[in-house]
Amino acid sequence: MQRELFIKMVLDAWDTQIKRTDDLFNQLSDEQLMAEVSPGRNRGIYLLGHLAAVHDRIFPILNLGKEINPGMYEVFVASPDKSGAEIQPISELKLYWKKVNSKLAEQFSKLSVEEWFQKHTSVSEEDFKKEPHRNKLNIIINRTNHLAFHLGQLIFLKPRNQ
Amino acid sequence: MQRELFIKMVLDAWDTQIKRTDDLFNQLSDEQLMAEVSPGRNRGIYLLGHLAAVHDRIFPILNLGKEINPGMYEVFVASPDKSGAEIQPISELKLYWKKVNSKLAEQFSKLSVEEWFQKHTSVSEEDFKKEPHRNKLNIIINRTNHLAFHLGQLIFLKPRNQ
Repeated sequence: MQRELFIKMVLDAWDTQIKRTDDLFNQLSDEQLMAEVSPGRNRGIYLLGHLAAVHDRIFPILNLGKEINPGMYEVFVASPDKSGAEIQPISELKLYWKKVNSKLAEQFSKLSVEEWFQKHTSVSEEDFKKEPHRNKLNIIINRTNHLAFHLGQLIFLKPRNQ
Repeated sequence: MQRELFIKMVLDAWDTQIKRTDDLFNQLSDEQLMAEVSPGRNRGIYLLGHLAAVHDRIFPILNLGKEINPGMYEVFVASPDKSGAEIQPISELKLYWKKVNSKLAEQFSKLSVEEWFQKHTSVSEEDFKKEPHRNKLNIIINRTNHLAFHLGQLIFLKPRNQ
């Protein structure tokens, strides 16, 4: 019972950050998303693609199947913003972001308590014996903090007095 | 054993964000901390005080005693930046930040597994029966995300090519 509770706590925090980011993306115009979050920093469109690509990578890490769009990782994670790589239109990136998160939510709801405490695919069997905290649920804790980190930057795309 | 593991997962994530933020504060000069993280936004000095004051408030919320400096909450949480309130020098705020976090670490290490799953002081007994996830450990999950959110902003105080 404590274990179910713990999973709820972690997934609630994830859902809260997803909801806040989603609300922000829905509020921002394409013009606002094309701007840099701060002078000389990443653009909103890049962070939108970055977050979606990082979340898409969760599928293989948690052994939940393949990424929806594996090519996005190269453009939005392995490459910095303004690298010259071709970027999809904002409307498509917004759909990708929504699709990844809704498919993750669907898959998360099917994972059993035992599965959440199993090792993820980036850790070896041997290391996992010594470090059992490197389980699937821990990936969600870390990705939630990653999301909050970039959300703190993305809110700068909103006008100051809004 | 599984319950100890949850606590380790949450506290490891907390420690990671604290360490990153601490390293950043150590790298930044007073001049850099006096700057706004982005044009028209909070200054570094304000976010330093804000994070320290929010963390100081964790003591009463987890029933671990009083805040180290209760007056800070009014200046750095209840009031916005540049409100005209007198702000302590950066050197003192840095000491306050370190003192709060090291005292929290000390207290966290003494909490038993049972205590982490007890209700925090901001939730009523009645609500806690219906919402048992509103426990002490959940406060740490949420405050870790809060810290990551502002860390994402504070890194803009570093020069771009560093």
